[in-house]
Amino acid sequence: MSTQEFARWMSEIQARTESALGAALPDAAIAPARLHEAMRYAVLGGGKRVRPLLVHAAGALVSASPDQLDFPACAVELIHAYSLVHDDMPCMDDDILRRGKPTVHVEYDDATALLVGDALQTQAFQTLTESSFNISPGARIEMIRLLAQASGSRGMAGGQAIDLASVGLRLTREELEFMHLHKTGALIRAAILLGAHCGTPAAESTLNALDRYAKLIGLLFQVVDDILDAQADTATLGKTAGKDADNDKPTYVSLLGLDEARRLAQEMLTAAHDALAPLGPRADALRQLADYIVHRPF
Amino acid sequence: MSTQEFARWMSEIQARTESALGAALPDAAIAPARLHEAMRYAVLGGGKRVRPLLVHAAGALVSASPDQLDFPACAVELIHAYSLVHDDMPCMDDDILRRGKPTVHVEYDDATALLVGDALQTQAFQTLTESSFNISPGARIEMIRLLAQASGSRGMAGGQAIDLASVGLRLTREELEFMHLHKTGALIRAAILLGAHCGTPAAESTLNALDRYAKLIGLLFQVVDDILDAQADTATLGKTAGKDADNDKPTYVSLLGLDEARRLAQEMLTAAHDALAPLGPRADALRQLADYIVHRPF
Repeated sequence: MSTQEFARWMSEIQARTESALGAALPDAAIAPARLHEAMRYAVLGGGKRVRPLLVHAAGALVSASPDQLDFPACAVELIHAYSLVHDDMPCMDDDILRRGKPTVHVEYDDATALLVGDALQTQAFQTLTESSFNISPGARIEMIRLLAQASGSRGMAGGQAIDLASVGLRLTREELEFMHLHKTGALIRAAILLGAHCGTPAAESTLNALDRYAKLIGLLFQVVDDILDAQADTATLGKTAGKDADNDKPTYVSLLGLDEARRLAQEMLTAAHDALAPLGPRADALRQLADYIVHRPF
Repeated sequence: MSTQEFARWMSEIQARTESALGAALPDAAIAPARLHEAMRYAVLGGGKRVRPLLVHAAGALVSASPDQLDFPACAVELIHAYSLVHDDMPCMDDDILRRGKPTVHVEYDDATALLVGDALQTQAFQTLTESSFNISPGARIEMIRLLAQASGSRGMAGGQAIDLASVGLRLTREELEFMHLHKTGALIRAAILLGAHCGTPAAESTLNALDRYAKLIGLLFQVVDDILDAQADTATLGKTAGKDADNDKPTYVSLLGLDEARRLAQEMLTAAHDALAPLGPRADALRQLADYIVHRPF
């Protein structure tokens, strides 16, 4: 897959994800209209859709149909969107800017942001139960289980709790890794595994390779996020820059310094490629996505 | 079923629900320990468990095993518990007392309360995917769909949004009913339908009768809640009394007056019994639950 082919594939998946999310969310004219409008505001018209891209890239490896992959892609993105809405609230990170727009609690109000996040989480699970999602009920139950484990108190929400508790602390690299494996890594891993559940059942060795890749990508994503946050300005980042340092939050950059963090990212990228080596050309989109995560503009 | 048999049955279901919820929630020793402790604080050791009682009573009608009914009973109760934690937060009802104890954000903090609610919702869906829940995957997908529809923006969360938007307004009885059918009714209906999905497939006429009963019980529950809120004091209610009037929220009592609200409750109770008439003695627990909802001490 050439860089141009990858860029075209990426735009195509981003466009179809936008459209699938638009269809999954209730119309803003349906009561309660303000809640539905705010849910659409929180989800549509922005974001790099990294998790849906991972769903589709992993699905390609098992010859899954893009039409079917839209369901887990939306489910994972809705979980991600709900977590952003809640994380931005005053009692959490208290952020006012997200994807270049005012955050939901700023544009609407705190109570609406709370309900938007709640309802987006529900919608994520509901999406996997749609009758047009034509995967066996047994595989869908497994997908719902994976998504719930990745999102809950022993996954993403747990990572958030660890993050909150670590403000002002100096973590070891192991502790920082534990936090991020939960906060960001679990959902990224779920995106990849859900995609892999939508096609012809994968061999154990394929699933193991994917899982190694998924774990590396989850951490890699966070290392790069920390690097970008440390060096970018607010305008290009589309969210408030330098926030982590201001909040006295431990990051890979505060722990290792910028150069060492960059070296770590490169090391993880190489390891992610190594993990995919046995999977041949069908894993090309996953390879390019790893590169994209490291070299993304913002 | 005599009143004594019903009381014994009720205690038994409440006890087994407490135990099943304790097993479904992560141990407080598992990291992140503070989040898990707060989740257990929010859910365990209190509550009348009306929704689990409805799950088990509806399940009895289709000869479902109590061991299996524990799964949807927990799922529905976890959704209910998450909604209470979030509703009590400062940006919503700002309440400090729940089930006679400080609310989660008072006992812990706002960020923890937010994450507790989020993680309890996730746990609800995860519970229906447990491998020991021995119902066909197809039936479980249907249950997850019903639970999500009842909880999301077109169910409970939507009802909350309507509730927030109606503070200070004078609603018509139809508007008040629309709000409560979402806010309280949808989850109560889901409890009954989930129970009915755990046994031998029910006849269409049985499901229709259950659905009529469920809708009436959902509203009845709210009418009685409004009556209790208007007449009780904080100590017996276990939550802050007179809150609705203080918050200028429309209630059945503010709309109809206390006497007329009581008359309406009696009328709905009679209609709920009528709905169950064709179902014979196996619906006895549902009948007694309707009476209990009207005559519950608090």
